[in-house]
Amino acid sequence: MNGLAISSVLFLVLVEKSNARATLNNYNERKTNLIEEETLQSLGGSLRLTEKELLVNEKLMQWKEIEVNNSFYNPQYFNYSKHYFDFKDEMKKSKVYQFIQRMPKGAVLHVHSSLMLGANYLIELTYEDHLYACLTDDNLELRFSHTEPQRPCSVKWTLMSDLRNASEDIAQFDAKLKNYFTLDSDDHIGFHTDINAVWKKFNQVYFTIKSLISYRPVREKAFYQALQNFYNDNVMYIEIRSGLSSLYELNGTVHDKIYMATLYDEVTKLFMKVNPDFVGIKLIMTRARATNVDKVREALDLSRQVKQELPAMFAGFDLVGQEDVGRPLAEFSPVLLEAQDEINYYFHGGETNWYGTPVDENLFDAVLLGTKRIGHAYALIKHPALMTAVAEKDIALEVNVISNSVLSLVQDLRNHPLAIFLARGMPVVLSSDDPGVWGAEPLSDDFYVAFVAIASKHADLRMLKQLAINSIKYSALDDNGKTRLFSIFENKWNAFIDDVIATRL
Amino acid sequence: MNGLAISSVLFLVLVEKSNARATLNNYNERKTNLIEEETLQSLGGSLRLTEKELLVNEKLMQWKEIEVNNSFYNPQYFNYSKHYFDFKDEMKKSKVYQFIQRMPKGAVLHVHSSLMLGANYLIELTYEDHLYACLTDDNLELRFSHTEPQRPCSVKWTLMSDLRNASEDIAQFDAKLKNYFTLDSDDHIGFHTDINAVWKKFNQVYFTIKSLISYRPVREKAFYQALQNFYNDNVMYIEIRSGLSSLYELNGTVHDKIYMATLYDEVTKLFMKVNPDFVGIKLIMTRARATNVDKVREALDLSRQVKQELPAMFAGFDLVGQEDVGRPLAEFSPVLLEAQDEINYYFHGGETNWYGTPVDENLFDAVLLGTKRIGHAYALIKHPALMTAVAEKDIALEVNVISNSVLSLVQDLRNHPLAIFLARGMPVVLSSDDPGVWGAEPLSDDFYVAFVAIASKHADLRMLKQLAINSIKYSALDDNGKTRLFSIFENKWNAFIDDVIATRL
Ligand SMILES: [Zn+2]
Ligand SMILES: [Zn+2]
Repeated sequence: MNGLAISSVLFLVLVEKSNARATLNNYNERKTNLIEEETLQSLGGSLRLTEKELLVNEKLMQWKEIEVNNSFYNPQYFNYSKHYFDFKDEMKKSKVYQFIQRMPKGAVLHVHSSLMLGANYLIELTYEDHLYACLTDDNLELRFSHTEPQRPCSVKWTLMSDLRNASEDIAQFDAKLKNYFTLDSDDHIGFHTDINAVWKKFNQVYFTIKSLISYRPVREKAFYQALQNFYNDNVMYIEIRSGLSSLYELNGTVHDKIYMATLYDEVTKLFMKVNPDFVGIKLIMTRARATNVDKVREALDLSRQVKQELPAMFAGFDLVGQEDVGRPLAEFSPVLLEAQDEINYYFHGGETNWYGTPVDENLFDAVLLGTKRIGHAYALIKHPALMTAVAEKDIALEVNVISNSVLSLVQDLRNHPLAIFLARGMPVVLSSDDPGVWGAEPLSDDFYVAFVAIASKHADLRMLKQLAINSIKYSALDDNGKTRLFSIFENKWNAFIDDVIATRL
Repeated sequence: MNGLAISSVLFLVLVEKSNARATLNNYNERKTNLIEEETLQSLGGSLRLTEKELLVNEKLMQWKEIEVNNSFYNPQYFNYSKHYFDFKDEMKKSKVYQFIQRMPKGAVLHVHSSLMLGANYLIELTYEDHLYACLTDDNLELRFSHTEPQRPCSVKWTLMSDLRNASEDIAQFDAKLKNYFTLDSDDHIGFHTDINAVWKKFNQVYFTIKSLISYRPVREKAFYQALQNFYNDNVMYIEIRSGLSSLYELNGTVHDKIYMATLYDEVTKLFMKVNPDFVGIKLIMTRARATNVDKVREALDLSRQVKQELPAMFAGFDLVGQEDVGRPLAEFSPVLLEAQDEINYYFHGGETNWYGTPVDENLFDAVLLGTKRIGHAYALIKHPALMTAVAEKDIALEVNVISNSVLSLVQDLRNHPLAIFLARGMPVVLSSDDPGVWGAEPLSDDFYVAFVAIASKHADLRMLKQLAINSIKYSALDDNGKTRLFSIFENKWNAFIDDVIATRL
């Protein structure tokens, strides 16, 4: 073999190697581009961060990396396939959690007014004077009264103070009492057996709480405290859902329903005097969906009245309660169609796993009735044509991940459709539904679970900031209100970033 | 008020009513159209059924309606949030189940050859002569041998027949033995705590089964029986995944790996002589993904050899084992890129809940390496850009719903991403992965769960037929093979439809 032949063999080998390298480079580039394309499409993915934000983000992502890897390598320690009740306390030790708690989160757009407060505070309220209890093993009804209440009770109406004093151990009595005010317990009712079982308990808790806070002075205290808790969790504005019920006084006076709207308004104004950077509330009027057309028509009339008397506070109308056992939206669509020019809708929809049933198809009615946002929209992911329409109409999805887990729609949080909504850059706002009932913080728990357990491991500060921005953008505030809220948010956000840097993260 | 005024008021009322009616009609039409658009997009949704098929479909949908409603109204009785082990027996009483079992289902494209058989049959095989056992509380290793095996054992190698005869109650002995061959038990290992726990048990079961069927005569029997079971479940063609291991004889002879490919080929030919309407098998060679580049290169060399020696049987190559703990595909991509012109890939990908991790991103590598299909693709739904690419390239998704549930990816089956793949008309084939390990029927259980629990309530015979058609369309058969399989399928299908009608459904 002569020199020329050797060198041409060598040349061919080199060409082959360099081709292989080029192929591999090209391969890696295509992979990077595809992943980058998905990042840009994801919620917040195209947001530009400032130098300072980038600095904070770097640290945040270091913490997130450690936490996700900890779960990945030690699933026995803390992983998202467990029930929320099994990791909620441990979660709070996390640096990412503490970061999120400090972070200004904008608005909460989906929360039920009676269920904003945790059991511990509600137990405190049972120390108020004149409180009678009708207490059985299954159920607790409460009533403030000077004398024994004239309401049916399967046992005997007894003063709470008497019950408490008769108990051997008050701490133990209160601990037992707490079970009537919360779903949070060691047994995870209905988690993988029967969604109706957990809803039954949920409705019992709701009944007990409502009986406690239907007394006007207690409702005032409770609502002020609720605002305080949300504010402390760095929420600046809230849209509450409420059915407006009749509050009563100790002297027997019963207020009309609209009185409660006024109460919300006045308590909020008081709160804003003390906390001028809290922007306020709006009201979405609700009615149980397990009702009939006449009741819905009535509720719409009441909505019109509230809109007229408290136009600044009124946002719109919704139907609530366990969707599976309620009546399909389609039954009410003639009445709802009639009112759609006067009243904005914020319908719950698709809070179900029963694909292809009339319940599931509430989503179609919600969209066709012109809903401004959709509560939950859990099942939307199974409806591609509708999902395209929702994206085009820019209808926001009010996602409440912990609610969906506790109320048995999903067990492993990583299977929550929010992951897909985020990936597709759908107009998502995060909220907490009934945080008091499962003992969650007003918004931080939902933000943390969404960010660390559900979103991509790559999701970063841009997603968190976009979620806060979305909560303003998709609120029922008018343009002036949004501008004001956004400017307060921006100041708080910048101060937060500075503070995180100043305290050396 | 004069007559004219009254009639014009009446006229206005009538106009208003007729406007309202028109609005409502328009509303209902838009809803129907949107739902119809989604039906057409869904898998099988645009298939046209014959008169006879429509007749059968009507009956099928009556049964399905009853079964879904039964679960909807009585979730305590049988619902899909329960573990598969808790409803698998009850499921078999269902009329829809029995219909699906009789139905020709085409091909199985994703099954691991050693795990096709249930524990009951494997227990029968332990009655073979010369079988020694190394039996501890945790583990069972088996070995056929004339004399005590010369392999390490923490206790003592003992003849299975001696162990069995020494037991007081043989039925009880076998019942206990069965636990080494199956995951199916009352405790649902790792279901909501730790995916690694269930995989650990899975790997133990695999180890025990493999030790039983590494003996050549037993492997022959076992594989023949596996084909028989699949055939009995109305499967006409199978693509098996196998790592090709070394079988041994009683006299100590150890065969090379390629011998096993020949064995599969010969057993199948024998089976086809007895059952001429069974179309055959193809082989996807596998290697554990918890390995290194050299081992993968070795396995690719073996694949080339099998391809050359048994070209009709060879389909391609894949990497297997728990994806979370294996090495990312990216580590092997240089080697896999080199071989991609010679060897077709059928990669497992996205069998994970760890969104945004390197494991999750195996999906990108699989697609960029030109995979013909994707095994599981569970996480694909979280990757919109990749999903578009997969749809455009018409890469089939091999979905194994019961596997994903038992191996802890999803608890409530209604949250399985298959629902969304079906809704979007993605190229799905249904398969069963390792049906023997959880005691499932070869294909009927997966079909039933997909059809009744996961797909829309509206999904009907068109979806079932399209799934069978897809299993042929996306097989590794060449065009002639597909044509032949499809013509056999069509005959069987028409005979099935006639039979269902003749037996008065
Ligand atoms: Zn709600
Ligand atoms: Zn597999």
